[in-house]
Amino acid sequence: MSDPEQRRVPVTTSSEVVATYLVETYLPLEQAAEAIAGEQSTGTFTAVARETPELRERFAARVLSVEQLPPTGNADLPGSTHDASRGAGKRSARVRIAFGLDNFGPSLPNLLAAVAGNLFELRQLAGIRLLDLDLPAPFAERYPGPQYGVRGTRELLDRPDGVLLGTIVKPSIGLPPDELRLVVRELAEAGIDFIKDDELMGSPPHSPLAERVAVVTEELGKVAARTGRRPMYAFNITDDLDRMAANHDLVHAAGGTCVMVCVNLVGFSALAWLRARCVLPIHGHRAMTGVYTRAPQLGIDYVAWSKLARLAGADHLHTNGLSNKFYETDEEVLRSITAVRTPLLGGYETLPVLSSGQTPGLAPETYRRTNTTDLLVLAGGGIHGHPSGPSAGVTAMRAAWSAATSGTTLDAAAAQVPALQEALDRFGSPYAGTPGE
Amino acid sequence: MSDPEQRRVPVTTSSEVVATYLVETYLPLEQAAEAIAGEQSTGTFTAVARETPELRERFAARVLSVEQLPPTGNADLPGSTHDASRGAGKRSARVRIAFGLDNFGPSLPNLLAAVAGNLFELRQLAGIRLLDLDLPAPFAERYPGPQYGVRGTRELLDRPDGVLLGTIVKPSIGLPPDELRLVVRELAEAGIDFIKDDELMGSPPHSPLAERVAVVTEELGKVAARTGRRPMYAFNITDDLDRMAANHDLVHAAGGTCVMVCVNLVGFSALAWLRARCVLPIHGHRAMTGVYTRAPQLGIDYVAWSKLARLAGADHLHTNGLSNKFYETDEEVLRSITAVRTPLLGGYETLPVLSSGQTPGLAPETYRRTNTTDLLVLAGGGIHGHPSGPSAGVTAMRAAWSAATSGTTLDAAAAQVPALQEALDRFGSPYAGTPGE
Repeated sequence: MSDPEQRRVPVTTSSEVVATYLVETYLPLEQAAEAIAGEQSTGTFTAVARETPELRERFAARVLSVEQLPPTGNADLPGSTHDASRGAGKRSARVRIAFGLDNFGPSLPNLLAAVAGNLFELRQLAGIRLLDLDLPAPFAERYPGPQYGVRGTRELLDRPDGVLLGTIVKPSIGLPPDELRLVVRELAEAGIDFIKDDELMGSPPHSPLAERVAVVTEELGKVAARTGRRPMYAFNITDDLDRMAANHDLVHAAGGTCVMVCVNLVGFSALAWLRARCVLPIHGHRAMTGVYTRAPQLGIDYVAWSKLARLAGADHLHTNGLSNKFYETDEEVLRSITAVRTPLLGGYETLPVLSSGQTPGLAPETYRRTNTTDLLVLAGGGIHGHPSGPSAGVTAMRAAWSAATSGTTLDAAAAQVPALQEALDRFGSPYAGTPGE
Repeated sequence: MSDPEQRRVPVTTSSEVVATYLVETYLPLEQAAEAIAGEQSTGTFTAVARETPELRERFAARVLSVEQLPPTGNADLPGSTHDASRGAGKRSARVRIAFGLDNFGPSLPNLLAAVAGNLFELRQLAGIRLLDLDLPAPFAERYPGPQYGVRGTRELLDRPDGVLLGTIVKPSIGLPPDELRLVVRELAEAGIDFIKDDELMGSPPHSPLAERVAVVTEELGKVAARTGRRPMYAFNITDDLDRMAANHDLVHAAGGTCVMVCVNLVGFSALAWLRARCVLPIHGHRAMTGVYTRAPQLGIDYVAWSKLARLAGADHLHTNGLSNKFYETDEEVLRSITAVRTPLLGGYETLPVLSSGQTPGLAPETYRRTNTTDLLVLAGGGIHGHPSGPSAGVTAMRAAWSAATSGTTLDAAAAQVPALQEALDRFGSPYAGTPGE
């Protein structure tokens, strides 16, 4: 702290992490921002011995910018300090803070300690949300990221272009292996690209993973021999870590071509640990992401979250889909899809996975707003709930996406493909009349 | 599935997990509760083939009870469904839902998929918080839990009774090993029981873990040779998993007696993975717990969270302390301490760790309200910021706790112990005049 000019370094360096937050506070914004920087680097609540100016100079986090925002209307977090003497209302700002990488190194758990640790508990804050992370190159050196991503998945599926269509086994749980075999056969014969276990399906007694793997891979092999096409099946290998690794090996040994991991339920570092041992594409499910994202005044935004999941090795990552059955708006979903598709440290080309309430009627609007077919679109109920059964469900989804990408209207396509007409009659066309339709 | 009588088990069984939620909704409460049970077991948004009544009967989660609560005043979660036709306001309830263990097995990640997965995103809910979990015996068979706990920690420290006193190395980061040596020497000679790294301190270039371990264990050995007492030092081994395990081995090989893990930053399953390889007590730091706990309308309550951390093997677990610098009220902190001390599946005797803004003045009230000395009380700034230095800080804390447990007032004790008087003058006595004082 000897030379003030040296301290105010306005730009990010390759040895810093920059975290962007939504900060809401009744204190002066700069004071709240400094409270985060202090708590998350050198500080405690009182001056302590050996905390020299030189030490602070070298290790303290630096507030790079405080950009005041219009009022958000968010509820206050409990316990937030009100400074009655100032009589000021709540202020909201986008705050950028730089953390020296040397404080913690390119490690996901240690990074989280700095950018997402105790700060959620600071009483100086009436709202605190980690929006984004700019990570320096050493993270790319530590974390290889997706092994397959968009291109690798397309190669395995022999689908060089076009949207990738998938489904979830339904019912979510309870289906015995012999019935699963029939479901898989029907879907595979109908030309689906991808099938996955529900995230609720682990390795229960009524359908142990080993048995599921045996049945599914055998069935997919038979279909592939007949049709020349072998869908990818993502077995949910989520479990305690040694079991998860063994599950992966089991899937691989049986000739399976994909594993699913619920990223939050094992954690980023467990995903990275698996990635180091994994030879199959990792389908990254986002169960429990809502606990980080849904409270507007608290949490971790999907933009920041998805970067960590991609670093940790997710080849596919769930983004939710338009007109989904969950809480997110289309705008939020589109932002998530964009986040996953935006290059990270020059790579980390993860495939966005759209799911939840996906039906043929959503294809034109999804294509119009994402402007890409580098998407894996999963229809669960939208395929299994088709009035003429799952095979017709696949046909309808494929016809809808074919129409969407070729500029044909759904109605025109449905006139040629009865399964699509049935699907539209059953599930509707939420965006009928919009430019995509 | 043949005998309906066997299937309708109205009470909780040893093969079920019961999750208790705070549910807030504009829909009829029963409808919202069923939406959770459906989404988190057999359901999707539309009827699907093969979802037979028998399958639902066997695998569907069951709503056990819906206990309406007075209005909470919590903000609505975004995207929550309002049923305008009913014109009803928001209702809040404590809802208990039973999940068949056979759906997922005694696995922490797979348990989370069911009780804390997609449900946070349900638009039927304007508020959703996992409050508690009742777990059946198979979890105890899978997860051995704390290896040391309260008794093992006391044995290692040769402190059969009395509160355990500790501190955090301050400054949090930036202290070179040679200065760390001096800090540790002073604290150890002053008779402290426990010292820990800050959660921000991993293995940075300016203070690599290996060097820290060498310096600290050597210094503790020297002090032990002089005084007969060897404090426990919790080295923060949090890192990517293989590194974390190697860090543990490094600490153990050097004669260290404790490791610290930031539970949320690696995840419960990574903690359990470490536990299976670990021979030292695990000091469980709770950094990032606020992201689960602080929004009242969303998240995972500490009561549920701490059970998972104990199962996964935390010997010590941070609960926060009275009059802390963070957002929690004393009532919330006391509830957390009680949660950690409540037997879980007949055991899992984890030591609560009180920290954040802890000073000698808090001892009487902490003892009065917890009625136990089975606590590890950490004072960071409260020891390092003592006007006469850390050694006087330890003396003051010890004198305050001695007074508290013997029924002496702090003022009377301070008249005998100048270091205590200095501490009270500097840090105050927030509860002076209350029954504990």
